[in-house]
Order: sequence, then structure tokens, then C-alpha cells
Amino acid sequence: MTAHDAPQHDSGRDSGGRSPGDRPRTGVWLIGARGSVATTTIVGCAALAAGLQPPTGLLTETQVFADSALPPLADLVFGGHDTACTPLPKRAEELVGAGVLAHGLPAAVGAELAVVERRIRPGGPERGDTRTTEELVECFAADLTDFTRDNGLERTVVVNVASTEPAAAEGQLPPSSLYAAAALRAGCGYVNFTPSTGLHHPDLRDTAGAAQVPYAGRDGKTGQTLLRSVLAPMFRSRALTVRAWSGTNLLGGGDGAALADPAAAAAKNAGKERVLAENLPEVPEGEVHIDDVPALGDWKTAWDHIAFDGFLGSRMILQTIWQGCDSALAAPLVLDLARILARADALGLRGPVDGLGFYFKDPDSGPADLAGQERELAQLAERLADRA
Amino acid sequence: MTAHDAPQHDSGRDSGGRSPGDRPRTGVWLIGARGSVATTTIVGCAALAAGLQPPTGLLTETQVFADSALPPLADLVFGGHDTACTPLPKRAEELVGAGVLAHGLPAAVGAELAVVERRIRPGGPERGDTRTTEELVECFAADLTDFTRDNGLERTVVVNVASTEPAAAEGQLPPSSLYAAAALRAGCGYVNFTPSTGLHHPDLRDTAGAAQVPYAGRDGKTGQTLLRSVLAPMFRSRALTVRAWSGTNLLGGGDGAALADPAAAAAKNAGKERVLAENLPEVPEGEVHIDDVPALGDWKTAWDHIAFDGFLGSRMILQTIWQGCDSALAAPLVLDLARILARADALGLRGPVDGLGFYFKDPDSGPADLAGQERELAQLAERLADRA
Amino acid sequence: MTAHDAPQHDSGRDSGGRSPGDRPRTGVWLIGARGSVATTTIVGCAALAAGLQPPTGLLTETQVFADSALPPLADLVFGGHDTACTPLPKRAEELVGAGVLAHGLPAAVGAELAVVERRIRPGGPERGDTRTTEELVECFAADLTDFTRDNGLERTVVVNVASTEPAAAEGQLPPSSLYAAAALRAGCGYVNFTPSTGLHHPDLRDTAGAAQVPYAGRDGKTGQTLLRSVLAPMFRSRALTVRAWSGTNLLGGGDGAALADPAAAAAKNAGKERVLAENLPEVPEGEVHIDDVPALGDWKTAWDHIAFDGFLGSRMILQTIWQGCDSALAAPLVLDLARILARADALGLRGPVDGLGFYFKDPDSGPADLAGQERELAQLAERLADRA
Amino acid sequence: MTAHDAPQHDSGRDSGGRSPGDRPRTGVWLIGARGSVATTTIVGCAALAAGLQPPTGLLTETQVFADSALPPLADLVFGGHDTACTPLPKRAEELVGAGVLAHGLPAAVGAELAVVERRIRPGGPERGDTRTTEELVECFAADLTDFTRDNGLERTVVVNVASTEPAAAEGQLPPSSLYAAAALRAGCGYVNFTPSTGLHHPDLRDTAGAAQVPYAGRDGKTGQTLLRSVLAPMFRSRALTVRAWSGTNLLGGGDGAALADPAAAAAKNAGKERVLAENLPEVPEGEVHIDDVPALGDWKTAWDHIAFDGFLGSRMILQTIWQGCDSALAAPLVLDLARILARADALGLRGPVDGLGFYFKDPDSGPADLAGQERELAQLAERLADRA
Repeated sequence: MTAHDAPQHDSGRDSGGRSPGDRPRTGVWLIGARGSVATTTIVGCAALAAGLQPPTGLLTETQVFADSALPPLADLVFGGHDTACTPLPKRAEELVGAGVLAHGLPAAVGAELAVVERRIRPGGPERGDTRTTEELVECFAADLTDFTRDNGLERTVVVNVASTEPAAAEGQLPPSSLYAAAALRAGCGYVNFTPSTGLHHPDLRDTAGAAQVPYAGRDGKTGQTLLRSVLAPMFRSRALTVRAWSGTNLLGGGDGAALADPAAAAAKNAGKERVLAENLPEVPEGEVHIDDVPALGDWKTAWDHIAFDGFLGSRMILQTIWQGCDSALAAPLVLDLARILARADALGLRGPVDGLGFYFKDPDSGPADLAGQERELAQLAERLADRA
Repeated sequence: MTAHDAPQHDSGRDSGGRSPGDRPRTGVWLIGARGSVATTTIVGCAALAAGLQPPTGLLTETQVFADSALPPLADLVFGGHDTACTPLPKRAEELVGAGVLAHGLPAAVGAELAVVERRIRPGGPERGDTRTTEELVECFAADLTDFTRDNGLERTVVVNVASTEPAAAEGQLPPSSLYAAAALRAGCGYVNFTPSTGLHHPDLRDTAGAAQVPYAGRDGKTGQTLLRSVLAPMFRSRALTVRAWSGTNLLGGGDGAALADPAAAAAKNAGKERVLAENLPEVPEGEVHIDDVPALGDWKTAWDHIAFDGFLGSRMILQTIWQGCDSALAAPLVLDLARILARADALGLRGPVDGLGFYFKDPDSGPADLAGQERELAQLAERLADRA
Repeated sequence: MTAHDAPQHDSGRDSGGRSPGDRPRTGVWLIGARGSVATTTIVGCAALAAGLQPPTGLLTETQVFADSALPPLADLVFGGHDTACTPLPKRAEELVGAGVLAHGLPAAVGAELAVVERRIRPGGPERGDTRTTEELVECFAADLTDFTRDNGLERTVVVNVASTEPAAAEGQLPPSSLYAAAALRAGCGYVNFTPSTGLHHPDLRDTAGAAQVPYAGRDGKTGQTLLRSVLAPMFRSRALTVRAWSGTNLLGGGDGAALADPAAAAAKNAGKERVLAENLPEVPEGEVHIDDVPALGDWKTAWDHIAFDGFLGSRMILQTIWQGCDSALAAPLVLDLARILARADALGLRGPVDGLGFYFKDPDSGPADLAGQERELAQLAERLADRA
Repeated sequence: MTAHDAPQHDSGRDSGGRSPGDRPRTGVWLIGARGSVATTTIVGCAALAAGLQPPTGLLTETQVFADSALPPLADLVFGGHDTACTPLPKRAEELVGAGVLAHGLPAAVGAELAVVERRIRPGGPERGDTRTTEELVECFAADLTDFTRDNGLERTVVVNVASTEPAAAEGQLPPSSLYAAAALRAGCGYVNFTPSTGLHHPDLRDTAGAAQVPYAGRDGKTGQTLLRSVLAPMFRSRALTVRAWSGTNLLGGGDGAALADPAAAAAKNAGKERVLAENLPEVPEGEVHIDDVPALGDWKTAWDHIAFDGFLGSRMILQTIWQGCDSALAAPLVLDLARILARADALGLRGPVDGLGFYFKDPDSGPADLAGQERELAQLAERLADRA
């Protein structure tokens, strides 16, 4: 269960900026780099690269992507922005206390965490920050360029895993969009793993910049919506009439607090409802609640109550209770997406990358059922290989 | 909610043995014709044909089968075998009391029920029955032939919806196989909607008779296994490791009592476990219980508890609670299967009909995930049309 | 299951205004007399008096109250106010459709329903009503006095079972308080079965009128709070630390719509939280949601999620799912309370009646755990007998 | 969350066999001393005595027992029998891996564990053991006497926390009864925290020995039955008719494996059903399953499904899901019982100690509802004080 007795893992890769054998390396720049999802991603990647843990939850380590020429986990180099100050190694220890990471795991990859910690740059804008939008974007883009150059990386993919932000005032670029603009400016692939605006801002999405990089989003599909994306198609395929679909989410980590803000929750819930709207002939009654319950820490409980009609109007009910660890659900998807976007970039794919609806609550395109999305992902895996 | 005020439905079709306009009609012969599933099927077909209810739960009334030239619901003619004596109209009223059928519905289709009741023939063997296997098969086959001829039917499909029988002593033909043998002898298509042996007996399946009719089975997928056939693929597709999958079923109708017999439950549970074995890389720990709880009547509650591992060995849990009415879940599938088998027979299809795994816990062939089964069913719907 | 074949029940009591043997009769005046709770109460009382149903859910028919000299069910005479117009017999049939009342039951007590329907007086104020507060109270009090006199009743108890009202603007008497004021003026015992203000208005509670009648309230404890009043004491008694107690209620009847209004829900939730605050050493984290889900009709589902700490800080969870019919849960408590208040009035008890916390979410006094409340109720039952 | 940084705890008490200030000390002899419950009890007692953890779950540390003159936790001295060989410190580390104990806690009380480990004596009989019953009892009794003398203890209480044993062949003393006989012979108070036979054997219970020591049992009430002991009284007190009460337990520790044996489960289930039989007017339908699910380790999930009738025969359902850690639920009760029995012994109480039904599924006497049992326990707490 723990990696307690494992030898200290230090591949020495970072000192020279090269992977063994001088393979080109890929940057993964995390917005919210000191958060739970980012920390779990970084710890997990190091643990997997060192063989300390099996790759549970990573599609990119299965047969599906065997021929897709993705960058190996050992060749991913992490950096990122954050406004929070708790250093990564300390954050990782907190995640041990929260039951997310096994005891001993942060220590086993301690050298890696220390190196990444040094690469994290201040995010923004902070309260009282007087910089203009242009200055902020320029600063963030420079961070990206420096990171890529200083570490001798072939390319860098930016992934937003920061806490959900409240809806922005009209016209104004919210923080998530500042980072997205910086990614465009620095020519980096971009993944929005949150429901925040990111590239979905009129000032960004239709610009020339967005046509120059591959991107994907939005809002990682980790729990309740994942379930809904298989259950709603089940009802549809059996011609059963869903009358009401109600849900309550209890979660306590940073996301719980962020989403207790109704404005932030609105974006999240839109994604959750979309999966019903697209998979069912009629949108059922019912609401979705997101409660901040600090006692639950990073563990999330989602209860769904589905009232449906069967033959001759018979009334039936399905209830589901999902108890998962949000960071552990998200991290392998983040690794998958970063690797896929890097490969897409290498192949010259530009604009929205098709076939990634499997990963998102609110994808740019494609089918809404998980089985259909899995097929599209497999086709993308083939496309990535074909062009190699 | 009720069909209370609906006019008495009597199309007068039976007197002359013809549907309006002299369309050829199709027989549906139900083994267990006075049981809950059969009664709900017969009442429901009449109610749908009369426009009293929408066709919730019937795939064959959706666009998927629009071009498959299936026999219309109004042209199905029901008969069957049963060892029970409660007349159909009385049984239907009991189902009103149990909350399965809306009040007023049995009365609204009372004429139809009375006609079908007169066509039900005694099943067997009863305790003390001295007839030989050959005599029983011959008697049942004669019942089928008489039914088809007397009602001027183009063809008849036999559907086993009787209570699950205990595993038979070796070598001996259990009752379900006697009826199956009779179907072969009478040249009727055959559907086994139960986990009983039916055609899966070495004396039957590989005989010449089985090569002369279309058949399908076995064990209708109505509740817990339906759910499992979408949830297990979800875990697999996300590379999550299912460690234990435990389930308890509470049900009170005849099926509850039958399945409280461990021998009968064994057959049922084999089907339930197969869906996990075929959809997951490894068979997880866990048992399935079926409890007879008479207080629940025809309503079934299934609780599933799934312990799975996520990224870095994190332990997560999904629980599902399904509260459904078994008869109402089964009846539309019975209608679908009868119509599809009739059409397959008309097209000259013989032997196991491919593409029906969507309907069964323990299908003869095909993929094990519901989405894959749905695709195969759609392909079958096209094949049925193509040859027309 | 149904009272279908029962003979028409008509005791003929109403014509002469006397019970058989000229026993004195007791009036029960229901505010919201055409609602689900009132209709179920009236139908149920008639059904029980006629021996059509066992007295499930009535404490006053158990040994506890055997010597308390309560008015017999057969001697209760119903009337009431309502602003809704659907006549009681029609409302009762709707409750059959909703699965609350057995088919045949409204017909079996049809004569009784028709009589009560004629006694229902218009409530208010309606939109556009120009009457002053004083005029409204006077009108309602006159209705009460007329009812008592016209039916030759010994006394009348007023029970508020109307939909929860939004919190009133300050200073203004909300409708529930108008009816309460009328009860005081007419000298009637008063029960507030809802979270609405009723007597809890500064203009009423401390007046001379309130000292002249027995009263009890408020907010009937029918489901989630009933459960909480046994579970919270369990945690306390085992010295387990409850960290978070979250709940979601789905309900579809009139109450669902009323409580979807946050102002109305606030009053209800206050009662729900009080049970935790009074039974636990510390108020746990967690929210309560009330969702209007019309598809569920009168059936209510309440999910509770309780995170607690055990020995050495171990984290444990209890979840409960309560699926009940609100009207059927409320009606027997309404009958109990009306009978108890009538007896208290006969004994000359005035002001708040002690010992009724068993029935309320937000009682005026007494212990907060159900076991303690049950003991107090038994003591009240004895007091009612002692003075006889 | 962890006691990681706590200083090593070593009170040095053991070397001299005295507590600071030469207070008399009390022995607690655990049958199954290297099992999960025993290990958690020993670690927990040391952690509480050292102030590393709050006394969550211990009634004996609340106001109820403030004046009962119980032996302080710091003055309990542990020893025991076991047939298993894994040393206590290793077992404690395994419980860290299983999520039962916080990381760092075993190390923080390592000195204490090492001392207790040295006191554990071999249990029996092992396979192939040729000793007679008399020889075994004599040997175990000598172990108890030696333990008490060698550690200078005032008295010793024996607590059986071993895995549930299968029902013994008639006439033969099962292992649990051998240990119980040894306790009688050595004049030690005895607690049976398991459903095994222990003192409930005709050869033991009615002997002179049993009249010389205080004893209590049987089968600790930790989870599902605890819940049932508050829910069943709730239904009874509301005059609701429980029709079926079904339950499934999933657990993976040693107890899971032991109880997968139907013979062992039978004893356990008898206790679970007794709580329903004694709290409800009629025993409801329904079964209880205990499944061994190794993947769950020491964590237990219990699902209960309760079908009940309300007013006018309305059908309602309550479901509960309890997810707890069995060892952490049991350990504080073991400490409570050992302290109470020691005090009872000091006061000269002999035979079954009244008032302990609060702790047991299958108590010797007293009320069956938790609230009533809590009252009796409080009375016992007073009796313990009164005689001091």
C-alpha cells in the first residue's frame, strides 16, 4: 500500500535537462501547480516513471495508445503557475494526511518535487495587482518560453487545473483566459481541465493564435458526470423515460469552497446538465447541488436520484452513490491529455483536437455517450500513430 | 395514470381469426402464460394496440426498427402453457393490487384477456404425471400446432417466461427443455427469457430440430445486470481496477420464491457474473444474493457495492440501488423479442439469431457491453429490413 | 390492498349532528382542508372509524393512550378553510392516482367526504382581498363558531396543515397567524403542523387569548427529522464525533413547490437543524436542500450523509435514504394531535401543552431525542387520564 | 491526522510493575491479543494515556462515569492469548496500511507494544494438540495467574476479542469456552465481545465458578445492530408496521473470513435478529448476509433495507448504509467494558453485571432499545460510584 520502503527516486534527469539517451523531453505546465490535482499529477508521474505504482487510471498506458508515439511518462518535465505559496513537498504531505497519497510516496519522489517546486512561477493577478491584461499575458508567456528553453524541451503543453473561477464580468478577461492567452502567445498546446472560461472567451477562441496550437477542453469528467455519461445512454437505449434526475455533491477540498460560490457552480452544473440533455430525448426535471463540506477533504460523495417510467407508466428509481477522491480521479486524465496534446502538436494538429470528449464534461464536439466517446478516442489514438 | 375511463377495447379480431384487412397474424405462445411477466405482456400489448399507453420500453417501436417489417403489435395473438390455474383476468387484477398495472387497465382490455385465457393449455409435468418425456413433448407440440392452425396464424414464436426452475438431474429433460423440444418439433421460433435450461440441453441444442428454427436466449437482462453491462465497461474504459463487486437482490414475486432455492439461483447468478467476467480484465471478488421478500411483491430492489482502485492505489466506491418492477421491465423485452424472432423466421433465419445480446444476461454470442450490444442490435434491425 | 369491495360507509352521523348514543362530538377544523394532508386525514379517519383499515401510525390507538379518555375517531367532525377549490372527493381521487390512497377508498367513504366538503369555508386573504386583518380574523372566527354550533360540537380544535408560507414581512400578520388569531378568538385549541408562523408571532403568542386555549407546535416531524431525532442521539450516546451532516429532500407535491421558495424553506430547515443542534455537542457542518421534483408527486425521498469520527480519529460514514409518502406520514399525527388537544381542552389545560415534542420538528419545550420525547408523551397520556 | 511527530511514549511503568505513585494497576487479558480489535485497543489505550488522541468513542471518559471510580486508562496493563504469530508492532503497522491507525501512531507507542507483545502467551488448542480439556484450561488459568502476579496487578479482566468460532459439536467445549473456564478458575472477570459460546455453555454458566466472578456478554454491538437498536424502536414508537428488514454486510478482515462460514455466521445473525424481535411487535421478513470481501480490509459496509407500512397501508422504505472500521468501533467498547468489569469486581459484584446491554447484540438482560440501554448504563455508573 505504501511506497514507504522504496529507495529515493532521483533519475538525475533534471540536472542536465536531458532524459537518458538524450531523448527530447516534453514540458507540462500546470496552472494551479500547487493544488491537489497538480500535486497528485506530479507525484504520480514520478512514481509511475520510477515503477513504484501501476498505471491505474491512465488510458495512455493501455494497448489503445501503444502505437501512438506519445512522450513517455519519464520524459515529462513539470512546471507551472500558482498564486498559492505552500511548497509542493509540503502540499504532497498534506495529501498524505488527507488519505489521497500513500504514506512514503512524497518522500520517495522528493527530489523530483523539489525540482518542480523551483520551477513554479507566481500566478496572477493578485488583489492589488496593477498590471494590465497585456502585461500579465506577456509575463505568463515569458514564463512559458523560459521554462521550455531553460529545460531544453521540445515543446510545452499548458494544462489548467486551478480551482474553478467565478464567472467573469463581461468584457473582462478572467484569470483562466489570461493563462490561455499566454499559451497561445507562447505557441503551447492548451488543455482546460476546469469549467473556467479559458479559451472559451470571444477575445481568444477565434483569434489567429488559437489556430496555431492544438487545444482541448473543458472540465474534466471525473465522477458524477462520468457515471451520467453511461447511465443516460442506458435509459435512452432501453426507451425508458427519465422524468427527474437530481444530484447532490459533497466535497471539501479547495474545489468545494470554490463551487459553494453559486457563480462558479453555475459553470460546473452546465456541464453536468449537458450530458443529460445530449443523451436523453428530453431534459428531465431535477437540480444539482454542490456543497462545501470541509470535513470530507479531497474525498467527494455524489448522490444521484433518477426517477424513470417503464412499461405502462410504471414508476421506477435508480440511485447511485459515488465516493471518490477527486485528485486521484483527475490526475491520470491530466497526464493522458498532456501526452496526447504533445503528440498532436508534434504532428502539426492545430485548433480543437477531435476525439477527446471521453475526458470532458463539456467537450467541443463529438458524441455525448461514453461508449461513443471511447470509440472516438481510439480513432484519435490511431490518427496519432498513422501520421508518425 | 389510470386507463380507468377508457372505452372497453375489443377489436373483434379474434372471432374471425383475422386482423382488420386480413393481414397475416403472428402467434406468441408464452410458457408460464398466467405469470406476472406474461400477464403484463398480454395486457400491455392490448393496451398499446388500443392506444391506451405509450410504448415506453419497446425498442421495436423506435426508429431503430422502423424499416424492419416487424409484425405490428395489433397483429400478435397470444396463447400459452401454464401449470397455474388463476385465470388471466384475475391475475391482472392482482397485478393492479401489487401496483404493477394501473387501475382500470385490466378492465379496459378485458375482452382480450378473456380470449387469451381460453387459449391457455395445461403445462407439465405435474406431480404424479405418468406421461413419458416423449408424450409430454408431443402433447405440447400439438398444442402449438393447434393454436397456430385454429387462429389462422402465419407462424408462432414460443417464449419461456416461466419461473426459474431448479437445475435438473443429469440426463433428464427439465420442464423448460420439454417446451423447447415441443417448439422445435412444431417448427416454432423459440426465446428463452429465463435462466432455465430450455434449448441449452445437450439432447436439444445440437439436434436437427434446432437447426430448423430461429432461437435466442437466455435470461432477460432487466435490472441489476443491465446496470452492470454499462458500469463494468465504464471501469474498464477508464483503466480503473475493480476489486470487489457485491450485490443483493430483494424481490417478492414468484421469482423471489423460486430463486430463494439455491439451485435455481445458481443459474441466475452465473449470468450476472458473466457480465463482469467479460467486461473486466479480472473477475472481481464479491457475491450476489437473491432474497425472497414477499412484502415487496413484484417490486425488486438491487443494491450493488463496487470497490475499485484509482490512481496510485486510491480506494473508491460506487454503490447503486435499483428499484424496479420486474414484470414491467421484462414485458417490453418479451414483445420486442417475439416480434424480432417472428420476422427472423419469416426471412428464413435459422439457429441462434445474432445480435440479441442486448436483451440477455447470458447471450449466445456477441459483445458483453450494452453499447456494443446496442450497435449489434441496430445491425440486426438492418438485416431484417435488407432481406425484405 | 384496496377497499374496493367494501360497502359504502355512511354512519348517518351527520344528519342529526349526533354520534350514536348522543355522545358529545369534537370538531377538527383544518386550515388547508382540501390539501393532501387534510384529505388523507379525513379519508383515513372515516376509513378507520368504519373498520376498513387498521390504525397504522396512530399512537392514540395504542395502549399508551388507552386510559386517556380521548374522543373516539368516530366522534370527530371535520371542517376547514381553504383557498383552493378542488372539491374533497375529487382531491381524494387524485390521491388515488398518486398512489397515496388505495383505489376504492374515496368511494367507500364518499358520503363522509361530501359532507365535509360542504363545511369547508373560503380561506384568505386572496390576491386583491381588501379586507383588513381584523375583518379577516373576525370572519374566520365566525366560521369556527358557526361550525361548532351548527354541528352541535362540544369543542373544536384548529389544525394548520396548509402549505408552508413564505416568511412574512415584518409587522404584518401572515395568513397562518390570521387563522391562529381566529382560533384564539373562537376559544379553540390550536395545532400548527407546519413551519409557518401561526401563533409564533409577537402579536399573538403573548396575548391573553393564547392563555385561554391549549396549543401545540410546530412543524410535524414526519421523515428526515424523525430519523435525525434517533440517529443524532445514537452518535451522542456513543461519544462519536459527527463532523458533517448533509441532506437533500426531493418532493413533488404542493409542499415541494412551496419549499422551493428559499424563504419558505428557511423556516423548515431551521427545524431540521435544531434537532442536530440540540442532540449533538457541536453543530456539524452540512446543508439541507429541498428540491421540488414534480415527477415524485406526494412521495418524498430524503438522503442524509453523516460523516463522523470514531476512535483514534477514524473516519466513518452513515447514509440514509427515506422514501415515504408525506401525507400518509402526516395524517395519523394530525389525528393524534387533534384528539390530544381536544382532551387537554376538556381538562382545562391552557397555553402550550407539554409533552408533544414527539410530534414536532420545532417543539416549544422538552427533550430533543425521540426516546425522551416518547417518554414525555407517555407521561402526558397519563396526565390526561389522571384528571379525568 | 497522524501522530507522526509525537515523542516516543514510554512511561516506564512496566519495568517496576507499578504506576506512578504506586497506584494499584488492573490487568486486561485479551483472547485474540494479536488481532485487529486487540491491537487497536492496546495502541489506542496507550495513545490516549499519552494524550496523543482524544477519547472519541469511550463512554467511560464522559461525565456519565465521572464518579464511578474506574481504573484510569494509564493504569491498564495488557496481555493475552493468541494462536497467531504476527507480533503486535508488525500487526499495528499492518493496521496503518489498512487505514485503521494513523501513520506514526504505532511508532509513538512502540515501547508499550513491545512490552505487551512479550506478555502474549500461546492460545489453543492448535491442530494436533493432544492436551485434554482439563490440561488446556489449567494452562490458560496459570497464564492468567502468572500475568496478574508478575505484573503486581490488583486484578485482571479477561476479554474475548478473537475471531468468531464455528458452533461447536455438542458436548465439547469450544476454544472460547476453554478460555472462559480459565477465567473462572483464575477468578478473573470475563467479557465475551464475540458471538462465540464462551460462558454460554451448559458446563460453565451454571457452575460455582461463574458465581464467583462478574461477567458480561455477548457480541459487541458496533455497527448494523447499533443502528437497528435505534431504528426499530423508532418504527415501534410511531406505530408503523415493519414488513421486511433485510441486510447485507461486506467486510474483509479476519472477521469476514470467519463469518463467511455459515456456522459462525449463524451465531452472529441470531444476535442481529434478536434486536428486531425484541423491539418490534412482530418479527419482520428478511435475511442478513455476511460476505467476506478481502478488498475491504478492516472496513465494513452494512446495507439495510426496511420496508414498512404507514397510514392506510401506504408502502414506504428506509435504507441505511453504514461504512465503518470494525476495529475502531470495537476498541473503545472493549476499554469501557474492561474498566467497568474491573470496578464491578472491586465492588464485589458477582455473576452477570446488569446494565451493559448498551454494548452487546445479545445481552443477558435488560431493554432492547438503545435509549433504554443508555439509561440502564447510567444507572450502573451510579451503582459503581455509590458503593465506593
